[in-house]
Amino acid sequence: MRYAVIMAGGAGTRLWPMSRQGSPKQLLPLFGGLSLLQIAWARAVTVVQPSNLYVCTGAAYADEVLRQLPGLLPQNLLGEPVGRDSLNAVAWSGAVLAKRDPQAVMAVLAADHLITPEDVFAERLTVGFELAEADASALVTFGVVPTSPHTGFGYLERGEAVEGYPEASQVVAFREKPDAATAAQYLASGGYWWNSGMFVWRVATLLDQLRQLQPATYDAVVELADNPARLTAIYADLTPVSVDYAIMEPVSAGLGSAHVVAVALPTQWADVGSYASLYEALPHDESGNAASGTVATMDATGNLVLNNDAGVVALIGVTGLAVVRSGSAVLVVPLKDAEKVKQMALRLE
Amino acid sequence: MRYAVIMAGGAGTRLWPMSRQGSPKQLLPLFGGLSLLQIAWARAVTVVQPSNLYVCTGAAYADEVLRQLPGLLPQNLLGEPVGRDSLNAVAWSGAVLAKRDPQAVMAVLAADHLITPEDVFAERLTVGFELAEADASALVTFGVVPTSPHTGFGYLERGEAVEGYPEASQVVAFREKPDAATAAQYLASGGYWWNSGMFVWRVATLLDQLRQLQPATYDAVVELADNPARLTAIYADLTPVSVDYAIMEPVSAGLGSAHVVAVALPTQWADVGSYASLYEALPHDESGNAASGTVATMDATGNLVLNNDAGVVALIGVTGLAVVRSGSAVLVVPLKDAEKVKQMALRLE
Repeated sequence: MRYAVIMAGGAGTRLWPMSRQGSPKQLLPLFGGLSLLQIAWARAVTVVQPSNLYVCTGAAYADEVLRQLPGLLPQNLLGEPVGRDSLNAVAWSGAVLAKRDPQAVMAVLAADHLITPEDVFAERLTVGFELAEADASALVTFGVVPTSPHTGFGYLERGEAVEGYPEASQVVAFREKPDAATAAQYLASGGYWWNSGMFVWRVATLLDQLRQLQPATYDAVVELADNPARLTAIYADLTPVSVDYAIMEPVSAGLGSAHVVAVALPTQWADVGSYASLYEALPHDESGNAASGTVATMDATGNLVLNNDAGVVALIGVTGLAVVRSGSAVLVVPLKDAEKVKQMALRLE
Repeated sequence: MRYAVIMAGGAGTRLWPMSRQGSPKQLLPLFGGLSLLQIAWARAVTVVQPSNLYVCTGAAYADEVLRQLPGLLPQNLLGEPVGRDSLNAVAWSGAVLAKRDPQAVMAVLAADHLITPEDVFAERLTVGFELAEADASALVTFGVVPTSPHTGFGYLERGEAVEGYPEASQVVAFREKPDAATAAQYLASGGYWWNSGMFVWRVATLLDQLRQLQPATYDAVVELADNPARLTAIYADLTPVSVDYAIMEPVSAGLGSAHVVAVALPTQWADVGSYASLYEALPHDESGNAASGTVATMDATGNLVLNNDAGVVALIGVTGLAVVRSGSAVLVVPLKDAEKVKQMALRLE
């Protein structure tokens, strides 16, 4: 009765022009020919049997997802008619699973993360299932053990240890992306983990917390599970909100009837959300360039060069840039300004 | 009996990928839809009648040149089977003109310069013709009055004034591209002009100097003028050398029987030989970006962006770059490293 839903929604505007409306980042074959979604599938399938693996994605990507994942049962593909942020994708998936198996214990996994070593991940995901199976009031999350005072991630503030699970802690607060001084303090204290955005819980527990904290969403997703024909009509009216904001933060603060537990992930972890993190995640040549496609460099160091087209992309004498050609567009941006790509993508598309 | 030959040979590897084997820089429609060649033609035709205007270019570009210049008589297009540097193009053109009109006075003009104001150029070109008509021993060149201690140009060292021509001086030496200190001294002294690489002379005078200084070339081009069918066979065997090195420098040093006179060009002048000079020559927007084609910029300043393809080229947060998409290639290089483009082009093509 272990299930997992890989969350593969989102257009990934911060990876424009690689990702677009029709080809979001998680479906791009960037990693030795594999997409992030295929890598996420390979990670999950070591813990959860394929027939219990689900993918929640945009309805427009359904064909491509089924093509990339031959092991995915078509009835396990949940296609959102429109994106409504993570709470609704998680809640809808939970309601669908509860309808099919009220005893389901459900992992929520991300399609756009790189995590190594994979066997450590599998082991800790299994611990997460065990915790949720043992404790009907637990919302289990995963905290990446920080290796730097990163200011680009949210943090989990750890409370007491969990008896019998040396790799887990209670979570007493979710902390927003910190400034540099705060991040350094978090790292030095040892009391904080990076918020990975992955979860395990009994679907019954999830729906119970939803009913208490987000009753409108609860009603909507239960109706959707009973009456899939109403998907398009109901989904568009859901309020976009993140699962952290709507459930995890209130529960960690003592609202709701559950509690939040985090399992440590002592792994390399990259949330491939921007060209800066993609650069970090890809292998580098001796000049520190990370390249994909036909690329020529001369006196160029520390660049990310992604060429999805025929013909060469040539760099001379530049440092620390992302240069991306995809579809008909070319983007040039310093890796340090990678967060500005979203703004450009929204302006152009 | 005034003629002009526009020199439009050269592949322009320093402007790769805009210029390639099949589309050299002088034929690219970079300037409000006009090519440098079309601009050079428009400049020349104010002084020399169209039927006396010649273009010397690579034989492979003949069709495109005739397409771009509807006023050019097909018999006035001289197509080199292979490039053999400027002396041979100039000598061959001179021999052809001498065959058609032994009294010809011939201007040698460049296809890849931008010169403004054009009426000042026309006035000084006319002075050049007058000087050559008045003095059978004059090789007339044009010296751009320097506005900066530029280290990227050769210089003409001025000698005595030319009687009756206040805008002209004898030339006592051709100086190679100077270092910064020497260039500053040249500028301060007022005794040096930039070597524009344009000339006026009687064809008889040119051929006479050729016969004295470059007898093998003289014999070859006279044979070519008499016997055009032998073009392919003879041209490939010519020794590549520049007209400055083979004729102008020796004559200015007292070899040969002629002398070199320079007419001042008090104009803006850009030898569009690299992306750096092209950036200087093109109009800039309020952020100092010079762009052609579909381009989007955000927080980007002082860049040259040339997009010869459909779809956008987007720059975020970068400064002082040349970003060029042409054909199937993309190039990114700091403008200050523009001279390295040639190396990359040779490596790739």
